[in-house]
Amino acid sequence: MGLENIPNIKEGDDLAKIIVEAAGKQNFKLQDRDVVVVTQKIVSKAEGRVVELDSVKPSKLALRVARRARKDPRHIETILRETVEILKMRDAHLIVETKHGFVCANAGVDRSNVVGGSKAVLLPLDPDRSAQLIRDGIKALAEVDVAVIVSDTFGRPWRIGQTNVAIGIAGMKPIKDYRGQKDMFGYMLRVSLIAVADELASAAELVMNKFDRVPVAVVRGYSYIEGEGTVREILRPKELDLFR
Amino acid sequence: MGLENIPNIKEGDDLAKIIVEAAGKQNFKLQDRDVVVVTQKIVSKAEGRVVELDSVKPSKLALRVARRARKDPRHIETILRETVEILKMRDAHLIVETKHGFVCANAGVDRSNVVGGSKAVLLPLDPDRSAQLIRDGIKALAEVDVAVIVSDTFGRPWRIGQTNVAIGIAGMKPIKDYRGQKDMFGYMLRVSLIAVADELASAAELVMNKFDRVPVAVVRGYSYIEGEGTVREILRPKELDLFR
Repeated sequence: MGLENIPNIKEGDDLAKIIVEAAGKQNFKLQDRDVVVVTQKIVSKAEGRVVELDSVKPSKLALRVARRARKDPRHIETILRETVEILKMRDAHLIVETKHGFVCANAGVDRSNVVGGSKAVLLPLDPDRSAQLIRDGIKALAEVDVAVIVSDTFGRPWRIGQTNVAIGIAGMKPIKDYRGQKDMFGYMLRVSLIAVADELASAAELVMNKFDRVPVAVVRGYSYIEGEGTVREILRPKELDLFR
Repeated sequence: MGLENIPNIKEGDDLAKIIVEAAGKQNFKLQDRDVVVVTQKIVSKAEGRVVELDSVKPSKLALRVARRARKDPRHIETILRETVEILKMRDAHLIVETKHGFVCANAGVDRSNVVGGSKAVLLPLDPDRSAQLIRDGIKALAEVDVAVIVSDTFGRPWRIGQTNVAIGIAGMKPIKDYRGQKDMFGYMLRVSLIAVADELASAAELVMNKFDRVPVAVVRGYSYIEGEGTVREILRPKELDLFR
């Protein structure tokens, strides 16, 4: 269920309150064990993770990269400031590891050109905490115990097209563990760990039309494993990654 | 909606008929524009893509790889026979490109130990065609026009855990294209192509408990773009892949 009626988000907005009110407006009552998926962009805007590009002084590296990639050097600079390691820098592509440990294009930094100057929207500083605050807020306001996923749209190697994945988690375990188990035919399961948080984020994307105002979706009926949960459980340590 | 009541599938079984009957048994009526997601394993079994490991003579390479990986050399041999290119071969990990162009672990070959000898279940020869046959069969039997996705569970770099992706498609376009468009705030969309077929496969996985008999799920209400569609649209050409 996509939540419509979410207004344009400004710094300081209370997302939990806005989500509960938006649900109310479409007569949708949040329930215990719902999974509320919130897109990164509104979380970042509410948390003030927006940089005026006019205020950014690009480094020499940013200037060189921008020239080759034909991009705005101030935009490149904001990306590099969010980066701890560059995996690939080729043509207009910049695949990096962010401070959080996410591997994605452009450190997840969105560029916007709005009236009043160009801006860059950065990822939340601590998306698990962002998810937890929304979860706590919904509990306080609506007296329901939901899981919250902050989602973003990432590309991936081998396959064309992006999918939504989880970048912050609260109230659920992100992985379902089938290790060492057999299916009903006695087959040893090749599948061992399912990243259900990413699958929930992907499912939610299907109802989030990017042109309408649907930055929040609720998944009902999925029997997740309750628990603290953190997105770090889905991030593969560099040493265990065959492609780093 | 997961479809229960799917029996153990044998070579030659008519999956369309089995799906329509299973839906009927739980009073679920398939509708036009439903997306029917079918797991690879039952498709492969219905198509007889099962190899008795006793009949497999491993090559010298398979014997060496198996010794290092502590795996059954006949299993390794079945994987190598499905492979066109090895991306990574390290310890027990074998990440390859399959004949279809999928990049995945073990060429998607499942190992099973059932009464009567060990078997390997291979991917369908042409999963788009498998999807098309199921779609045509459902249309003939139930007079509804559905899209069909054959799904499998793949790992990915950077992130722990596997997710379901599409390996065969019929009746829908696998990608939603946002290129060159702006959202309602005038933001240029960083997101350009969404791999909705993979997101639908992921959504379906959430109702497919691997221990129960739920190898088929139906997604209702998603407004996909009708069309021929093929999984090849989601496979990134090697030359355009930053990580090959």
